[in-house]
This record gives sequence, C-alpha cells and structure tokens, in this order.
Amino acid sequence: MSFSRRDFLMRVGQAGGFGAAFITMQHLGLMPMPEALAETGLELAAGGGTKVVILGGGIAGLVAAYEMGKAGYSCTVLEARKRPGGRNFTVRNSTKIEFTDGTVQTANWDDSSYFNAGPARLPSIHKTMLGYCKELGVPLEVEVNTSRSSLLQNDDAFGGKAIEQRQAINDTRGHVSELLAKCIQSNALDQQMTKEDHERMLAFLKIYGDLQPDYSYTDSERSGVDKLPGAGPDDEVLRAPLAMHSLLDADFWQGMMYEEIFDMQATMFQPVGGMDRIPYAFAAKLGDIVQYGCPVKEIRKTTNGVKVSYADPSGAVKMIEADYCICALPITILKNIPNDFSPRVKQAIAEVGYDHAYKVAWESRRFWEQDYNLYGGLGFVVKGPVNMLWYPSAKIFSENGVLIAGYGVENQSDFAKLPDIQAKFEASRAAAEKLHPGHGHELKNPMYMNWGMMPYNLGSWVGAAPNFVRNRRAGYYDGAYKEFIQPDDRIFFSGDHCSRIIGWQEGAALASHRATRMISEHVKMARLAGSTTTHDA
Amino acid sequence: MSFSRRDFLMRVGQAGGFGAAFITMQHLGLMPMPEALAETGLELAAGGGTKVVILGGGIAGLVAAYEMGKAGYSCTVLEARKRPGGRNFTVRNSTKIEFTDGTVQTANWDDSSYFNAGPARLPSIHKTMLGYCKELGVPLEVEVNTSRSSLLQNDDAFGGKAIEQRQAINDTRGHVSELLAKCIQSNALDQQMTKEDHERMLAFLKIYGDLQPDYSYTDSERSGVDKLPGAGPDDEVLRAPLAMHSLLDADFWQGMMYEEIFDMQATMFQPVGGMDRIPYAFAAKLGDIVQYGCPVKEIRKTTNGVKVSYADPSGAVKMIEADYCICALPITILKNIPNDFSPRVKQAIAEVGYDHAYKVAWESRRFWEQDYNLYGGLGFVVKGPVNMLWYPSAKIFSENGVLIAGYGVENQSDFAKLPDIQAKFEASRAAAEKLHPGHGHELKNPMYMNWGMMPYNLGSWVGAAPNFVRNRRAGYYDGAYKEFIQPDDRIFFSGDHCSRIIGWQEGAALASHRATRMISEHVKMARLAGSTTTHDA
Repeated sequence: MSFSRRDFLMRVGQAGGFGAAFITMQHLGLMPMPEALAETGLELAAGGGTKVVILGGGIAGLVAAYEMGKAGYSCTVLEARKRPGGRNFTVRNSTKIEFTDGTVQTANWDDSSYFNAGPARLPSIHKTMLGYCKELGVPLEVEVNTSRSSLLQNDDAFGGKAIEQRQAINDTRGHVSELLAKCIQSNALDQQMTKEDHERMLAFLKIYGDLQPDYSYTDSERSGVDKLPGAGPDDEVLRAPLAMHSLLDADFWQGMMYEEIFDMQATMFQPVGGMDRIPYAFAAKLGDIVQYGCPVKEIRKTTNGVKVSYADPSGAVKMIEADYCICALPITILKNIPNDFSPRVKQAIAEVGYDHAYKVAWESRRFWEQDYNLYGGLGFVVKGPVNMLWYPSAKIFSENGVLIAGYGVENQSDFAKLPDIQAKFEASRAAAEKLHPGHGHELKNPMYMNWGMMPYNLGSWVGAAPNFVRNRRAGYYDGAYKEFIQPDDRIFFSGDHCSRIIGWQEGAALASHRATRMISEHVKMARLAGSTTTHDA
Repeated sequence: MSFSRRDFLMRVGQAGGFGAAFITMQHLGLMPMPEALAETGLELAAGGGTKVVILGGGIAGLVAAYEMGKAGYSCTVLEARKRPGGRNFTVRNSTKIEFTDGTVQTANWDDSSYFNAGPARLPSIHKTMLGYCKELGVPLEVEVNTSRSSLLQNDDAFGGKAIEQRQAINDTRGHVSELLAKCIQSNALDQQMTKEDHERMLAFLKIYGDLQPDYSYTDSERSGVDKLPGAGPDDEVLRAPLAMHSLLDADFWQGMMYEEIFDMQATMFQPVGGMDRIPYAFAAKLGDIVQYGCPVKEIRKTTNGVKVSYADPSGAVKMIEADYCICALPITILKNIPNDFSPRVKQAIAEVGYDHAYKVAWESRRFWEQDYNLYGGLGFVVKGPVNMLWYPSAKIFSENGVLIAGYGVENQSDFAKLPDIQAKFEASRAAAEKLHPGHGHELKNPMYMNWGMMPYNLGSWVGAAPNFVRNRRAGYYDGAYKEFIQPDDRIFFSGDHCSRIIGWQEGAALASHRATRMISEHVKMARLAGSTTTHDA
C-alpha cells in the first residue's frame, strides 16, 4: 500500500487539526520528545513572527514568552495584576495583600524586611530555575532548610518542652541502632543475613547509633549538650538521652524527616532580596510583551488560532487574536472564564480543586539567633492549628528579621476553623511561644497570606484529590491531569499543574518548555504540510 | 583560731607567689570561676596599665590582647610572622606557602580564588567566635557542610561508582527500618516494649524508613531518582535501592555520619572573602600592640613578672619585661625556646606531640556545580591516601572555584608515605577523579598545605596520645593537659590546647578568656594584699 506516513498524517491533520496530527505522531513514535533539554536552552523552530498569546504572567507565562521570544515568535502576555510573578510574590514594606473578601493588609515594615509569600526556596535539583537565575543575573544565596539547632515540640511529650532536632534525630537513631543490635545479637535476623554480615551489621550500628562497646545507647555528643565544652577544666555535659517511649509519644517523625523530602534536601537557595527578583528579571527582558492590569475575560477558538478578550487597565474590553495560545492561568480561574474548550477539558476544569496554602509572617528581633543560636531552618509544632516555624536565611546576624509562624495547607488544617484574622495571628503567636517560651510577645506587624483568598489565584496548587492523583507511586495519569497536558486545538496549557512538580516554579518552567516545544513542533508540521502558520489578521 | 583566710592567703602568697595563692583560693572554693561569661564580653579588673606580654598573634593571642586592652592592660603581642592569625591563614593569588624544608609554593590564581588553609568553618554553637565576628563587623555567609548531592565512593563497592549521599543515607535507613520492623513483627523485642509501643514503633518505622504498607523497603524518592520528574508525561524514575550487603561492603559510615558530629552540624558559617578576615579585624583594632616579625627567643621569670627576648624584624635581639605573660605559642614551638618553666610544664611540653593536618587546594571550573548539581558540602573516598573532597561555599554559581581535594591528618594516613609533593598532587587529583570521573584533568594550580611543615607551627593541633587524652568520655584531665591550664607563676598558657575544643578557634578564644580572667583575679588579689602589680621597670 502506497499510503505514506505523510499522507496519513495529512489526513489526520485535516480531520482533527494539527494538534491531533501532532499527538498522533507522538503516539506513532515518529516525533519523540527530545529526551533531555539543556537546562534553560530550548531549540525551537524559528517563530517567524507567529503570534502567540500567553495567558498569565506567572513563572509559566514568563518562561514561555521568554523562550518563544528568543526563537522569533511574536508573544503577548496578558497579566491581570500590575506586577509579574503570580504566586511568586514578595511582601515588603508598604506591600498590600488584598483578599477576595475585601480584607486589605498593608505591610508597615522596616525597609530591610521581606517575606516570600509564595515560593521561597530553590532546591539544587531544580536545574531549570537555577539556570534562569544564572542566565538572568539573579544573585542567589543559601537557603538554610535544615538546622540541627531547630526545634520540635509536642504539648503531650516532654512536658511540652521543645526539643532540638539534633537530639530527637540522634537519640532516635541511637535507640533504633541499639534495638536492631539486640535483635542481631539474639540471632533474630539469622535468616536474613550471613554470619559475616551479622558481624558487619554490628560494627556498622556502633558507628550509626554512636553505641557503647556493648551496643547500648547511653548518650551521644551528636545529640547536643547540657553545657558546652570550654577552656581549662570546663567539661561539656552530655544530655541524658530521650527515651524511645517518650519519642514515640512526641511523634516528631514528620518534622524530623522533612529534610529528607527530595525537593527539600540541602543544598537549597533563594534569590538575594526576595524570590520576586526572578519574575522581575524576566519582566525586564520582556518589556511591553507583558501587558499588566489585563485580566482575561473570554477564550475562544478560531479556524486556525485563538481569540482572547481581556479588560485593559482602563477597564475597556479588548480582543487579541493569535495563532496559538499558551494558557498558564490557574485552573480555579479558568472555571469562571467563558471559553471554547472541548468537553474533556471543561470536565477536567470542573473536577479539579485547589489547596489553600497560607503563611503568617512577623517582624521580630532575631531572638532565635541571639538567644537560641538558631540560624535558618524549620521548626515543628505537632499539636494545634499552626505546625511550622520558618526562620529567615536572609540577612542572618542582623538585628531584626521576618519569622514565618505558620506555613501549611489551610483547608487541611484546623487553622481554617479559626474565626477571624486576629484569631489566626494569635494562633501563630502561640505556636512561636511553644517553641520559644517568653518570646511570643516579640512578634510584631503580622501579615497573613492565604492563596485561596487571592484574586486571580483562588488557591495555591492542585489539591490532593482522586481526580488529580499527586502520589507518584499511584501514577499521575489518573484523572484530570492528562487533559491539561495535551493541547486543545491551538490552546496549550501550562503551569505547575501541567507537570509532575506541582507547587514548584520548576514545574511551571518545565511545563512551559514543553508547551513551547509542542507549538514549535506544530509550526514545523504545518510548514511541512505547506500550510501557513502565520495568523492572517 | 584567729588565723584568718587573708592571713593564710598572704602566707601562701609569700611562699609560692600569687600564682600559688590564686590556685589555693580556687581549691578552697573562695574564688570560683565565673560560671558563664557573656559570649564575647569579659569583665576584667581594671588593668591600670599592668603590663602583659602576649606570645603569639594567633586567635588566642589576639583575643587576649583585645580583651585585656579593653580593660586597660598594657599589652604587647609578639608575632613571629608578618601577618596576624597563626593557623587562621587564607591563601590567595600570590600568597606564598613556605615549608621548613625550604619548599616554597606561590599561588598563581585568579583574584577571586582563595582557600582557608587552616580553620574554614564556624559552627553555630561556637558563640564566642560568632560574637567576635559581629562585634568586629566581619560579614559571614553560610558554609554548606552538608549536601545530599555530595558523593561517597569506595573502590571495592558498586564497581567503584560514586554514590550520592541522599541514596546512601536513605537506603541505609530504609533497610535498618525494614530489619527492625521484621524483628518487631516476629516478636523478637517483646521483652523490650509494651504492646502499644510495638504498634507505635511499626508506625514510626514506616515513616522513618519510607517503608511500604507491608514494612518492606523497596525504594524511596528520598534516595534520589534515575530521572527527574518533568512536565506532561515525564515521570520521575526512582532508583533501585542499594542492597544492605553492598552498603556494608562500601563502609560509607564515617562519611555519612560526619554531618552529625556536634561541631559539624548545620548551620555553619564562614567569613565572606576568607577566614583571615577575623584576625585582620582584630589586628586593625589592636594596631601597633601587635609587633610582627618578632619571633620569641627566650622566656624567663623575674621576681614579679616575666622577661621575654625576641628578634625584631631586623634580626636584632630585644627584650621586653612585663607583669604577666600569656603564652599562646604552639607547644611544638615551646620545645625549642629556652625558658624558666617549672619542671612539671617542661615535662608536659616534652610529652606532647602534634598532628600534621594537610589540605590540597586546586583552582578549577566548578564542574561539581555545573555537571553534578553539587553546591558545597563534603565528599568522601573510602580507599586510598586522600579521603575527603570539600567543595567551596564561596561564590557559588560563579565560573571557577577552589576545590579542596584532600583534608586530613597526614601523619595518620597513607598520604604521608607519598614520596614528594608531585605524588601528593597526583593522589589528590586521583581522589577527585574517583568522585568525578573525567574531571580530574580540570584541576589546576594546586597548593599543598601541611601544618607540620610550617615554621612557627610545626603541627596543627595536639595529637591523639595517651599523654593528652582528647576523648571526652575518657576525660581530658589525664596527662599533660592539666599542666597547661594552670599558670606557671606569672605565665598563663592559652591556645586551643588549653581548651576542650581542640583544633577550633572557639577553643583558642575561650582559653584566652580564661587566661585573662585568671590574670584579672590575680591583679585583684595582689591589690587586696596591698602589693603592687605594676611592673616597676
């Protein structure tokens, strides 16, 4: 049969548009995705003025415009706010946080104070974002995500006294090592290991748990001291170990293992001066490609492209036509924008709900540094509505700093049940007081961020839900996710929700790399097919 | 009996000098050491011009002069070298390292390159040194001592392939948790725990080891991935876990547990631009109190003080008399200086030997950052003469940096057996090549430091020896240590070897706090006894 591949693809193209041909080609294995991209460099087909309208000026939208611009596409970014960055939002003196319910907070802070209300750390494995910081000249500094001096507290253990992580971590390992050594010595594991490994396991456990020669765990300098060593006769005084039974009561496990979460492992970074240095660096490169104060009102398909209505800063409704659309708006926002999406996409949009991440930030004397020798890192409070304290890595050793007392998913916690913002501030202060008794009163000028209450966001990220499985082992492909990662005719979705790295800028950037690559392939295909991809309006 | 305390003390003073009276008072409990000092603030008796000669311008000598100067003592520091700092020594472009055997190396480096040949990190528990950095205005930055991306390698395991710390650490914990869960499930520990704890231990181990519902350890994202997650269908690919048997072969334990050494725990710091910012900041405050190029030639006692001969920068022998001496020279150097020390001190000096710490530093493209996503931290090589790589925390993300390939105690390692400096460089390069195959050739312009070969040091710190027990559990007081922590008439010893924090600047600073405090008490006692403490020369 002389039915060629090209004939076949042309027919698919005619029947279902180039999106269908493109997907078909991928399924046929004719056009595999490039296996690996250079960290920040994409090779896109020359745009030749092909028009692309990009909805949303968060990291996804900015990355798409930046990369497509390099390749000669003619991009317009419609951004509802008067600033770039979306959830990448740094609060400084005089910054306003305005909620959907009309609540307005204005930071009345020192000029040196800031907090990253959205993303606040860059793991070293997030090569794409680190690459952009390098390319755009955004200086980075170490974000201290792990400190052995940080604290863990549970009202129901150790009389409510906060415990240093060094002690919880190393006493736990000591007990575990002692228990396992006992089992090995009593031959309980002889089925599992050779005689040689039996001996080697004991030798290993002695180092691992800092055990005594008889394999008992009695104490360890790793767990910290009651009195630091000094000069002359000033001996250090080791701590008595925490009992395993009490550690089980304390249930510090989630806090203790936080540092081992793949995305949370040292070394981590932050831009010097605030995370929003990144979107502002993109914005500086993009200039008037980004149109601020322009919320999207309607998304329509045309025969060979898209047509998007938006309000301009004066409130007047404008319309833009383009060959392609990259839709990098939150799914929550798409629920309320009239559109021509196909039924499968509309259904997916309807199914997905977002989490409402929150943070509470305070100005304070750095009592955690000055009185606790605690520099950066995370503290954990097991009981109560506020479970995490996050100490600043910026300007360590300066007099004052911004302490995050409360970071979590509000809709999954008791924090949501608190009646008003004042009660939330008091719960936040109370959590700080649990880790640092007598210091709660030093917290001043609080600012509360709840992404669920932010216009143009209405949520922080896709929530854990059966319709959008986030568990890696269960597989992401179940549910709505698969609808957002394929184009809807000339509309290509982007954002962290189109990646396996939900809630991180890296996911947003990679999703836009993929969307731009798909459009580029589409343009190539269309040229191959002799069609014009340049919008003729 | 009317024999008063003061009478008694006067008689002791007459018989044995004020040193004896002072020691006696301490033994009587009449003059306890102040329990805790403010981190960097000492309250000393007003010096009123009392003359103190301080031998050695390392951290101990500088701290002593700085604190005594504040209190009105008239200090002179004799420093053999033309720079302050002693072992606190930062090598930059054109810095010379000159060994006792005549070897001279000169750094031919970029102006942005440096390495700290002596101390290179400040743990957050070293409050005294952090306090001085604050007081003297020395800016600090985070020193990354722990990175989950850093590497561990053993020729005899995993085919010699380097393993990421995240994998070694988390696979080990996974296996340990699985094994212990098996023992608990088979009731091997029923004697050790209640039924309730039995259940709670299983729940804990599931989180601790990232175990499956059946308590098996099959894999964990904590251990890193073979393929990072991406956008669209780009799933991450988890690593197959390393087998416990192979981990036992690899014997990574010392490297894995390094981050838990009390002094090595995050958060750690370094001065921006080099550790020697600290001694230079002291030196700037002290001005001509520090006399450079003045090696000590002789230390003699006088009736009420000391007399020290030294060579001045022209080589002429000079003499200085003072009421007190703080001797902050290395013990190795004291061996060769004629002195009037009492027999117990001479004996102690003869007994003590020093370790010879070494470092090898190279300029290089930052391949560890650019090709390995490895930012700061320590890598470990189990087999061979060079066992540690230390990646720079300074100027992360810049093009080139200084890599330490080899840091250890030369006299305790096979590194000492290498025939010459060229062989040492090649061993150093080979260790880097083991962790980073194909990159050894990128190492350039090596500099080798061996503190055992440095004039005016002849060693890095007191070696582990029966005559100077360093093991905290065994007790420091055995052997020579106790001779250095008490004065010899008007001579008070200082340096890290007079502290429980050997090999750290903190120990040197605290030892000088103690020495200055002892002198201050001596001055007070002398005034109380109606004697003059001002040298009458």
